Amino acid sequence: MVIDDATVKAEVEAAFRAYEAALVDNDVPTLEALFRDDPRTIRYGIGENLYGMDAIRAFRRARSAQGLARTLSETVITTYGRDCATAMTLFHRPGAPGRIGRQSQTWVRFADGWRVVAAHVSVIEG
Amino acid sequence: MVIDDATVKAEVEAAFRAYEAALVDNDVPTLEALFRDDPRTIRYGIGENLYGMDAIRAFRRARSAQGLARTLSETVITTYGRDCATAMTLFHRPGAPGRIGRQSQTWVRFADGWRVVAAHVSVIEG
Repeated sequence: MVIDDATVKAEVEAAFRAYEAALVDNDVPTLEALFRDDPRTIRYGIGENLYGMDAIRAFRRARSAQGLARTLSETVITTYGRDCATAMTLFHRPGAPGRIGRQSQTWVRFADGWRVVAAHVSVIEG
Repeated sequence: MVIDDATVKAEVEAAFRAYEAALVDNDVPTLEALFRDDPRTIRYGIGENLYGMDAIRAFRRARSAQGLARTLSETVITTYGRDCATAMTLFHRPGAPGRIGRQSQTWVRFADGWRVVAAHVSVIEG
């Protein structure tokens, strides 16, 4: 298994950037498109545990678009073979100084492209 | 790509159970053996962000062995192809009623077996 193949990694990095841009813009259609539409897709959010894409969609569509701006640090994307990758990053919101956000995602390549199949977001005191 | 192939899933479930048993017993050698020994392995813990297996080892070896007992719920393991899997679970500690733990892991199959390459643990109010 090739780890961090340059071509594969560039693909996942592009998908990750597209997701991040959509997140801070609250571009819900793009956010939804980048998660796999499947009951097995799971997202643990800052305050909620969402099992299945229906639950994830319902949460996103009801979410406030305020306060989503953030900066990232210590972002590490690692690819394992051609079809599996992890994306780990810390994030910082201007409105929450001293708190450190952590976002982890597992990305899998399907016939129609890379999709998040599992995600976990949490915040701790810095 | 076959999702949840029965043979692959059984392998990951066995690895997951071994990890859980080691965790509640604070069996540090087994915990370490089930994480990939690599600088790219990352673990976001309840209160710390550990980049690389050296940091993960240092944390585990300094950790108190008290209060590790827990029960799991809503555990979902999903395999993608033959070499990649996610394991998502909630957990509950007797000493922390009303709080919900969330643990997510990405498992990858290497020549010597399945290993966690990324993990994220957090606790929220229930």
